[in-house]
Amino acid sequence: MIGLNADLLDRFSAIVGARHALRDQADQHAFLEEPRDRYHGKTAIVLRPKSTAEVQQILQLAHDTRTAIVPQGGNTGLVGGQIPDGSGLQVVLSLTRLNAIRAIDPISNTIDVEAGVTLQRVRETAEAADRLFALSLASEGSCTIGGNIGTNAGGTSTIAYGNMRDLVLGLEVVLADGSLWRDMRHLRKDNTGYDFRGLFVGSEGTLGIVTAAVLKLYPRPRSTATAFAAVRDPAAALALLQIAQADSRAALVAFELIPRLGMELAVKHDLGSRDPLATAYPWYVLLELTSGAESGLNTVLEELLGDGMEQGLIEDAALASSMEQAKALWRPRESMSEVQGREGGSIKHDVSIPVADVAAFIAEATAAVEAFLPDARVLPFGHVGDGNIHFNISQPAGGDKDAFLAHWEDVNAIVHDIVARYHGSISAEHGIGQSKLSLLPQVKDKVAMQMMYATKQMLDPKGILNPGKLLL
Amino acid sequence: MIGLNADLLDRFSAIVGARHALRDQADQHAFLEEPRDRYHGKTAIVLRPKSTAEVQQILQLAHDTRTAIVPQGGNTGLVGGQIPDGSGLQVVLSLTRLNAIRAIDPISNTIDVEAGVTLQRVRETAEAADRLFALSLASEGSCTIGGNIGTNAGGTSTIAYGNMRDLVLGLEVVLADGSLWRDMRHLRKDNTGYDFRGLFVGSEGTLGIVTAAVLKLYPRPRSTATAFAAVRDPAAALALLQIAQADSRAALVAFELIPRLGMELAVKHDLGSRDPLATAYPWYVLLELTSGAESGLNTVLEELLGDGMEQGLIEDAALASSMEQAKALWRPRESMSEVQGREGGSIKHDVSIPVADVAAFIAEATAAVEAFLPDARVLPFGHVGDGNIHFNISQPAGGDKDAFLAHWEDVNAIVHDIVARYHGSISAEHGIGQSKLSLLPQVKDKVAMQMMYATKQMLDPKGILNPGKLLL
Repeated sequence: MIGLNADLLDRFSAIVGARHALRDQADQHAFLEEPRDRYHGKTAIVLRPKSTAEVQQILQLAHDTRTAIVPQGGNTGLVGGQIPDGSGLQVVLSLTRLNAIRAIDPISNTIDVEAGVTLQRVRETAEAADRLFALSLASEGSCTIGGNIGTNAGGTSTIAYGNMRDLVLGLEVVLADGSLWRDMRHLRKDNTGYDFRGLFVGSEGTLGIVTAAVLKLYPRPRSTATAFAAVRDPAAALALLQIAQADSRAALVAFELIPRLGMELAVKHDLGSRDPLATAYPWYVLLELTSGAESGLNTVLEELLGDGMEQGLIEDAALASSMEQAKALWRPRESMSEVQGREGGSIKHDVSIPVADVAAFIAEATAAVEAFLPDARVLPFGHVGDGNIHFNISQPAGGDKDAFLAHWEDVNAIVHDIVARYHGSISAEHGIGQSKLSLLPQVKDKVAMQMMYATKQMLDPKGILNPGKLLL
Repeated sequence: MIGLNADLLDRFSAIVGARHALRDQADQHAFLEEPRDRYHGKTAIVLRPKSTAEVQQILQLAHDTRTAIVPQGGNTGLVGGQIPDGSGLQVVLSLTRLNAIRAIDPISNTIDVEAGVTLQRVRETAEAADRLFALSLASEGSCTIGGNIGTNAGGTSTIAYGNMRDLVLGLEVVLADGSLWRDMRHLRKDNTGYDFRGLFVGSEGTLGIVTAAVLKLYPRPRSTATAFAAVRDPAAALALLQIAQADSRAALVAFELIPRLGMELAVKHDLGSRDPLATAYPWYVLLELTSGAESGLNTVLEELLGDGMEQGLIEDAALASSMEQAKALWRPRESMSEVQGREGGSIKHDVSIPVADVAAFIAEATAAVEAFLPDARVLPFGHVGDGNIHFNISQPAGGDKDAFLAHWEDVNAIVHDIVARYHGSISAEHGIGQSKLSLLPQVKDKVAMQMMYATKQMLDPKGILNPGKLLL
């Protein structure tokens, strides 16, 4: 390791221009602090290239000098993947100035965008062309396409359209030595050789730096219908899911589970959240349909809810009759993370299991956690239609936050053990980053780990791409 | 290379049992001849293992002795990927006895199947559980899931559900050294480490032997509506496609283009094919919708056709009012390959281009081929909704077949050159196999080729997995 002497910093700086090479701590602030304030790092320089060619030059120099590169998009990641370590020896490579929308083709249903374009801008550009870009995240105003690709972002509408990996048709990636793998395909069918796209998507910047992508678009829905339904338990929610998925007159674009405690905390801590129903119920489902038809969708949703009631699955329901009402139904769901924070400490899990096992998993994991911490308040919520549960646990009411959070690892172990028995995943959406680095080898098949190490060795033999993330 | 001496053959034979180790030429016949009779090979032994463990033992022995292994499914591939070379030194590994359906979970929408299960059996098993397995191919009665995975099979319904790669949730793969990568996930979201699934899918048996997979299921459609519409030209077909895709009251599951010549040859050579329309038109589109609703779909299709006529896109149309009529509408499309054979020689291309460029591509490639061979009859047809055109050229009427076929390579060069200008693919569905082995390095980016070679070296350092296929 040569280390970051002044001469090397000057050479990096010369590539992007001094204005875009941030060496002052004051300027670096926004690149080193992340949303939950859990990961802290230092860097001698933050580089902000404007073009793929500049990224290539940076990587060539980094490769020659064995300098570690930490790629960063909108800096919204929750597992510390985009934050350098504390050594000061890692260079932060911010891609946000690579922000051109290169092309949009509504007939082929494709959009070509650079890594630094925000998700929201991609969605808006697609909408202006009467198309849908289907990924949707709470952080879409600031997260970038490059970050979405690096982390294989999920979100609420994956039930209908898949994860980011399913939405990528083509990629442009700068490899560790600065060479460019240009695979900006606009094709729906192409069987010419090995397909590396899925490997780069979700590799958290450890195999290459994504500089641009061709993304899939869909026709823009013409109408949306949203409902909030009270159900007895998660098993009833799953049965309702079956009904909703079988009716293909509309696309089921969201199917979210919320427990009573979640609603209580939302109403308590978030002024904008109201309980849509007059009576309290143990569980709720927030569901949303979209359609290419201008009208008639509320009738479809009413029939669906009617079927659910007839089969004894729904206790009560509210259907939005305006955009504003739809927003009000979403509000408690969207405030779920925030209101937990206001209630004190929470121990969190981002897990997924086969959809059919969701109810059994929630029951078993809840019982296990309550046996270990009788006063803790289990609050499992999220994308039940994908089997993706944010299995969070709020501290005992009025208890000591730090004392509760001291159980983090023990509770993780209890929950992840049950996840493993259900052949689930300990990181459904957020990735490994720094957060689950040591857990990965415990949950991953040995042959898979060997393949991962071999792949890393193949594509980044000097280990300069985001070291200390994903793979130990 | 140790070569296949009798002792080695005995050791291979002992793994599967002598009954399932075919050494007689008479028994090997079905494994060495392929549908179009274009590829011929020899082998000393065809091994038919019954379990993943037996496949592991075979690979361990092959690895120890540097014996080449040619995996084979239903032997329906069109590019020679499943046929050994002429040396007699390559062992054929037939997976058809690995034919268990291990599990089906209609709630999670997954089915676990072994590699040797036929596509048709997967579809039927899904249907019995009120679900759809969405891949559909002409050869589904004999092709196997392992082959579908190895070749990333496409077919007619990819417009709605994607290719095989999009339908694979989990994989079980025996690696070159006999070790087992078990990744039989049933999860819709899982961000724990590198995703190798997409890399193995479509790798034509050169990176590992797929022994089982978890496949995605969809709700079973309750109704289907099929129509046959005459259009002025491919541009009108594309405009109609836009209308059909925007209407999400139903899923557009097929959108196939047929030129007048195709209809003429079908009516001439296939007793079962009739022209559904009274007048001749230059081009046709066969389109099919499905829905989760029991009824009302024909009305949706009628409205869609009405819109198309109003906008001047459709000249005339026939709508099926029964299953039988729907089959009759499909018949000319399905006989397309066969009737071309009866008309004499044809020079074939399996290409894809961005959907928006299909009309321009067909015009340009047709003009170029006609300029080179004025009497040849261009017959482009196929999955226009995916940009996948089977750009075939029939010999001049009454001309000499061999004289025409002697132009194969020249015509390929003309067509593929235009494909390259449209950033298309020279193998949309069928793969590389032996057929396009020498073409691949010409059309593929150099960095991509290097990554392919490095990956092959990483996963199969001794080069025993399907040598002479896909990668030179």
